[in-house]
Formats: sequence, structure tokens, C-alpha cells
Amino acid sequence: MSWEDNVRRVTPYTAGEQPVGKVIKLNTNEFPYAPSPMVASRIYDLAQDELDGSSSMLRKYPDMDATKLVNAIVSVYGDMYPEAGLNFDRVFVGVGSDDVLSTAFMTYFDSDKSVLFPDITYSFYDVWAELHRVPYKTQPLRDDFTIDINDYLYKENGGIIIPNPNAPTGIYEDPSIFEEIINANPDSVVIVDEAYIDFGGKSVLPLIGKYDNLLVVQTFSKSRALAGLRIGVAFGNEKLINYLKDVKFSINSYTMNYPAIEIATASVLDVDYWKETVDKLIKTREWTKDKLSELDFKFGDSMANFIFAAHKKKPAGEIFARLKEKNIYVRHWNKPRIDNYLRISIGTDEEMKELVYALEEILK
Amino acid sequence: MSWEDNVRRVTPYTAGEQPVGKVIKLNTNEFPYAPSPMVASRIYDLAQDELDGSSSMLRKYPDMDATKLVNAIVSVYGDMYPEAGLNFDRVFVGVGSDDVLSTAFMTYFDSDKSVLFPDITYSFYDVWAELHRVPYKTQPLRDDFTIDINDYLYKENGGIIIPNPNAPTGIYEDPSIFEEIINANPDSVVIVDEAYIDFGGKSVLPLIGKYDNLLVVQTFSKSRALAGLRIGVAFGNEKLINYLKDVKFSINSYTMNYPAIEIATASVLDVDYWKETVDKLIKTREWTKDKLSELDFKFGDSMANFIFAAHKKKPAGEIFARLKEKNIYVRHWNKPRIDNYLRISIGTDEEMKELVYALEEILK
Repeated sequence: MSWEDNVRRVTPYTAGEQPVGKVIKLNTNEFPYAPSPMVASRIYDLAQDELDGSSSMLRKYPDMDATKLVNAIVSVYGDMYPEAGLNFDRVFVGVGSDDVLSTAFMTYFDSDKSVLFPDITYSFYDVWAELHRVPYKTQPLRDDFTIDINDYLYKENGGIIIPNPNAPTGIYEDPSIFEEIINANPDSVVIVDEAYIDFGGKSVLPLIGKYDNLLVVQTFSKSRALAGLRIGVAFGNEKLINYLKDVKFSINSYTMNYPAIEIATASVLDVDYWKETVDKLIKTREWTKDKLSELDFKFGDSMANFIFAAHKKKPAGEIFARLKEKNIYVRHWNKPRIDNYLRISIGTDEEMKELVYALEEILK
Repeated sequence: MSWEDNVRRVTPYTAGEQPVGKVIKLNTNEFPYAPSPMVASRIYDLAQDELDGSSSMLRKYPDMDATKLVNAIVSVYGDMYPEAGLNFDRVFVGVGSDDVLSTAFMTYFDSDKSVLFPDITYSFYDVWAELHRVPYKTQPLRDDFTIDINDYLYKENGGIIIPNPNAPTGIYEDPSIFEEIINANPDSVVIVDEAYIDFGGKSVLPLIGKYDNLLVVQTFSKSRALAGLRIGVAFGNEKLINYLKDVKFSINSYTMNYPAIEIATASVLDVDYWKETVDKLIKTREWTKDKLSELDFKFGDSMANFIFAAHKKKPAGEIFARLKEKNIYVRHWNKPRIDNYLRISIGTDEEMKELVYALEEILK
């Protein structure tokens, strides 16, 4: 007998490498451009407040409801998706979408029935399931990495979670697919993980105005270039969001720190910059697709800020290692069904040109 | 049957009010002075990095190990407590000590045996126990709010957590008490929650060099004036800390955002400012004790940044309400054994003078 007998033992998620030094980093789907200039300007104001000690905001607890940020989200996303009926009580913010999703697993998947998600998907889902002791059954994607909707229509379950576009495949499904799944599962919470939705897909957000069992999760780490700030958002019916808040406020009264609330708000309100930089990234992605095709890669039609590609002749592991030698980092998993694929994040035009040039060398 | 049947239902913790407008806020134990000027200067640098888009750090994921911050802590606390044998693997950082403690409950208290803590204590402990389904038994404090050590020496348990100084009483116990408890419970993790230790108490930190079942938790929200930044720290043996990290990395790869890591590091490295402002607060606390005695309040000898006081004649609820009318916020709980007490945070000299003046009016 020892104190170790009382310990919860788990195997954590492994994130992509964060190499230091001068490398081309296309392995964690970070956005290649800086966040909105409004962000820098807001941080400058924060510095001024602290310099003048009497106006220090850091010494005080932050607003536990992150009211300013939530109101900005309601205003901007409310305009984009009027059918969602957004209001303060339909929005939840957390420390990155990982924090939001982990809390959602804990909150909504509290039964003995298995939660369903694709076999090839974000590799944190099974980690959260193990941690929170949620039983789960993975549903195999088709060979082209699309979902077989029948896998989610007729099986008893304790909840469903599917990313759209899916990761690491980049494959996007139409919102109508999700509406069918939500409709068929009124006794389960259905989570659509839209981390990559801003890169060309259509959000299912309008459906939260219609279904009380749909949670839509998004992140500021990708299209908003704020991975360093840790902001995730969930949208849902008031009742659904309220259960999530109860669990969150049972863990920590104040998760969103003051700088995060202020900086994220500045980002949300600069809609033009956001759209402009996302459009730029999409152009680079389409250019990269053309080049990869020419180099004999095959890949689905990614709607994310990455491309999941397999070379027709050269094994992925080999290309991965050769790219690393050239200080270009992409992602590769030694997992069944995907071990011949590379997940390549979309960087700047210059970075993608260097990648293509390196691939040409490796493949010649 | 409905999706609500799968929901984890909990009753969250209620934090102290955060009134807006011009009030004297002595209800959430925030530090009354601004954080170190090094903090403002670091934030200014962050703004510069983002202004010059190409050096944006916010677009990238933060260092998941918060290496810079942990190294600063190891250096400064290592000097203060050489017996603790501090190194990188003996330190854990989280989003406020609430996040650290919730993760610790989840990690170390994973058995069917009851966890022990005082009946009058930080009111988040039973919330975490309920959330993580940890059975618990509260141990009654003596009438003077000190611990009866026998309550923690001879009872089978799945873990022990005690704050020192205790909250909301402010009562401090000598580290020797904790050493006896740790010694008597080799099969349990013992957590000493030192949120308020910097205001005159002696930390049990040296004991982590000696016992592998001791976790010491501290916060940057009190003496470091960084409540708005959400930084908590845990110290313990490598093996203990490693289990905590496994659970943390099973929830979220990156909890500490980039600004938090940078700002907190600047704070840790400015040791002189920290000691100077803490000394100033202690002087104000002792002055306030004298004044409260003169006004016929009774209270234990608080070693925290608050005083937990009962008036010999006037009920606490009444004083609380009258103070609020005068825009002075203190904290009051309608709970057995403590409903005649007010918890009064120590503010600036001016704020405490205004408090004393208001109390004189209310009590005359």
C-alpha cells in the first residue's frame, strides 16, 4: 500500500513538436500571419494601465463571465449567423478549445453508454474519454476519409463528437449531414468541433437555434492567429451552456485571464482583418494543392489550414525525415490507416514555396 | 429519456462579488498594490512584438512546459528554500491555484476512501470533491479555529488537504504540525494549500525534499498582485508532480497562455518589490488589528492578507449590510459556526482608515 494506489493514471496527449531556432514550422496548424493590429494596440494599453500603478487591472480577479469577450462574440457571430439566436447565455469561453472540449466530455458524456466518434480524428478525443472514464466506440471513416452517416443514425450512444472539417484529414462535410445526425439522436448531446471551419466550410451554428442538443466548438488558435492566447468558444442552447458553466465554475471561478479577455475581444471586433488574412491563407492552400498534385501527392479536398497528403510512391515516414533534415517540420503519425500521410500546415507563400522546392529535391 | 440524463449535475462554487464603480473592495483578498513595475515593462515588450507582425508570439502555441516561468520559480524559490531541492521536475504551474487544486483532487484522491479537510475552510474543497466524486469527511476545528492534529493522525483516509494559513479564519499553524501529519500518512497525498503563506507564515516547502507524499500549492493572486493573470504553482517530489502533469496534459496541452508565462516570470524575478509590498501590507494589517480591537471586535491572530473578525455585540450580517450601504464590500457567509464573522481583506492604508471610520459610525 502506498499513496500511489490512490492516483489516477493516464497517458497524456502528445502535441506536435515545438522546435526552437530557425525552422519552417508546418506541424501544428498555427496561422502564419500575426493577429489583428488591434491586438498590439490593446496590449500597449494594458502596459500603460500597469505602468500607472493605480489603474492596475492585473491585481484584481478578472471578470469570471468574460462579459466583454462574450458580448463581442455575440455581436459579431450574431450578425454572421442570425438563425443561431445568439445571446450572452448561448456562449461559453474557455482556455483553448481543448479546455472547452474536455469540460464538455465531463459534462455531457456522463453515462455508461458509449460515445461515438470517427476512427481517424483529433487524437485528444480518446484521451479525454479515458481521463473522464467515458466509454467510447470509434466509427470507421470510409476509404476516402468521409463519414458514413449510418454509423451515427442507428446506434445507441451516450453522445457524439465529430470535427468538421475533420482533423487530420481536412475533409469537410455539409451541415445537412450533421442536422440528420442531431435529429436522429435527441437523447444525446452532439458536439461539432469546428476548429478549422473558417477556412472555407459552412458552420452548423445556425442549427443551435433549432436543436437544444447541439454544441458547436470553435477556437481562436487557427484563423485568429491567437494560439498563444488560449481561447476556445462553445455555442449552444441556454440550457446546454448552463450545464457546461456549472461544471466549469466547479473547477475554477476564473479561467480566462484579464489579458486574454482584452486581447481576444480586440481580435473579434476586427472582422475585416480576419476575413482578409483567412482569404490570403485559402489562396496559398489552393496554390499548394496544385503543386502537391504536380508532385504526385494524393489528398482529399482540404477545407482546413492544412493538407493531409500521401505520396503515390515515396513513404510518408521517409519524406517526413528528409524534410526535417532540411529544417521543415510537418506532422506524421505511426498509426493504422494514416501512417502513409503527412499533415502539412499552410504557412506563408514563401514558406510553401520553400516546402515545394524541398519536396522537389526529395522526390527527384 | 433525454440528453439531460447523461449530464453531470453539480452546484458550483460562489466567488465573492465583483462590484463595479467606485467602491472600497475588501471582499476577495486581492492585493491592494500594483504588481512589480517589471510586469508593465514586459507587457510593453509584448505589444512591440505584436506591432512588428513578423515577431508575433501570440500566433504560435505557447511553450507547454512554461519553461521560462518554471525556471524563474526554481531559481528564486530554490534560493529561499534550499532544503526543498527544487528543480524543473518538482514544479507544476496552472491557471490559478484553483486549477492546480482541482487537478490535484482528480489526480491524487482517486479512491473510495474519504479525503479529510477542516469543517471551516476554503469552500471550494467540497465542490471539487463533489465534481470529481471524491468522498470526504470534514474534521471540526477547535473553537479558536485551530486544528486538532489528532483528527489527521489516526483516521484512514484517501488524502488530506489543509490550507495554511487557513481561510477564511487566517489562522496559521507551524510546519511541525504538518510534518507530523505527513509522517502519520505515508499512504496518502497530503496537500498544504499555502495561498496566504507569504504574509508572515513559514512555508512547509523545505519538507518536499524529505517526503514524497507532500504537495505544496501556492498562488500569484495574493502577494504577487496578479489575480488577473491566473497563476498557481505546486511543488512536490518528481514522481508526485509527474502524475499531476499526466492528468493536466490529458486535459489541455497548453493551459498557460503566452502573456501569462511572460508576465509571471517578470514578477517572480523582482524579489525586492515583492518583499517590500508584502511588508507594507503586513504593517497595515497589524494597524487594522489594533483598530478592530479598540472597536470591540474579536479575531484570531491572522497571518493572511485578511482578518476574520466577529463583533462582541453587533451581528456580522448587520455590519456587513451597513458597510455595503457605504460602498465598502467585505465578505460574510451564512454558514454554521462562522455566520457572525466578517472576512475583511487588507487594502491600502487609506482604504483601511475609511473602513475603520465607517465601522466607528456603524457601531456608535
